[in-house]
Amino acid sequence: MLSKNEQKKIRLLGEKKYRSKLGLFIAEGIKIIQELIKEGYTFESIYSSKPIDFAPYKLIDKPTLNKVSYLTNCSGIMGVFKIPESSHSYKTDSFSLAVDSISDPGNLGTIIRLCDWFGIKNIYCSSDTVDCYNPKVIQSTMGSIARVKCHYIDLIPFLSKYESTVYGATLDGKTHYHNLYDKKGILVVGSESHGISTEVLKKIDQSVTITPKGLGTNAESLNVATATAILLSEIFRF
Amino acid sequence: MLSKNEQKKIRLLGEKKYRSKLGLFIAEGIKIIQELIKEGYTFESIYSSKPIDFAPYKLIDKPTLNKVSYLTNCSGIMGVFKIPESSHSYKTDSFSLAVDSISDPGNLGTIIRLCDWFGIKNIYCSSDTVDCYNPKVIQSTMGSIARVKCHYIDLIPFLSKYESTVYGATLDGKTHYHNLYDKKGILVVGSESHGISTEVLKKIDQSVTITPKGLGTNAESLNVATATAILLSEIFRF
Repeated sequence: MLSKNEQKKIRLLGEKKYRSKLGLFIAEGIKIIQELIKEGYTFESIYSSKPIDFAPYKLIDKPTLNKVSYLTNCSGIMGVFKIPESSHSYKTDSFSLAVDSISDPGNLGTIIRLCDWFGIKNIYCSSDTVDCYNPKVIQSTMGSIARVKCHYIDLIPFLSKYESTVYGATLDGKTHYHNLYDKKGILVVGSESHGISTEVLKKIDQSVTITPKGLGTNAESLNVATATAILLSEIFRF
Repeated sequence: MLSKNEQKKIRLLGEKKYRSKLGLFIAEGIKIIQELIKEGYTFESIYSSKPIDFAPYKLIDKPTLNKVSYLTNCSGIMGVFKIPESSHSYKTDSFSLAVDSISDPGNLGTIIRLCDWFGIKNIYCSSDTVDCYNPKVIQSTMGSIARVKCHYIDLIPFLSKYESTVYGATLDGKTHYHNLYDKKGILVVGSESHGISTEVLKKIDQSVTITPKGLGTNAESLNVATATAILLSEIFRF
């Protein structure tokens, strides 16, 4: 049985203000929970509908877990984890990513997973970007949230002081197939509906555009996560 | 006012069996509806909460539209469109895409949008792939469904008879950075959880893997839409 207090806490953790206040977030699914534990994240509780052997847990029947789950298909296991202290080691990566006003949790989660794949450890997010501890973001990172840190900052002063080249994904830059990239730098990608904001655009040293192929192409833009994928693959070309 | 019959029809069109039976699908959002009309799709009805000038419509108040909408944030405009007859012009593209058991509507929609960007006109989908007329697929294509056709077929005989090279996205193929691609061919991508199925794998001539960069990379895989993005960008390199 989940106590009323436990149910309430899980429900509150769907909202950013309570996640910040309580310093906790929800993760669902065995793989994500195992990755978080492996990477040193501490948890307050784990609720599982089946016995597990890698952590202490409380056995909860699946219909009850289903009721509090944030997923369409409840996975039968949920953890309440502590949000780690934000570190500010901004200059450790040779190449980083900045995201400006991404609002869709699935897009941010997919971008975090991509960064993990390409070895990017830090993402700099504009303050209005969706919270990385949102349950849907956590879900779509597939565990990569355990290894990639999101720093919520004001991008304008951050990029103004940035010491290497600032690249930006726009619709009127140089073709992404050119070998444009220095060894060090940061790529900025913008929101789903408006791209990079006007003020942030002023901080871009080099804009890059994914070239559509041939005639008869009518798509006006790409999904931000797929655009980021294409550009990161190009940046990390060897 | 939406009549009870209209409400019922919209509700039924959330299910594949009724879409097939009635030959209709739902599209929401002004951009998608305009693109469908521009590309010659015919509609049965358009319901809008505001006056529009590009098509005959029925004015419906927003709360009513909200009740029948398939979106989290109702856009205030919904169209009931006719599913076009499936054409079988399988060999018109120089490069095509095949998807094996993709189940997430957002992933298929994003892949359709990508294909539109890169000029791929036909996608060959295994019969168990999510229906391309699912309202969530339509939504995430952002209008590209109007220009890209999905053919639901048995991939095994199709790929067996395929005349050009069959490429497959796997976790143990050649690095995607090598220039592997012939001018003609087809790329096969697999399901979110299991990749390409064993039987379809036997039809692959050349498997390709997106190389993770450097050490410390722990993501086990990429989201299927982002992986498709990276591979298509490489295939259409010039």
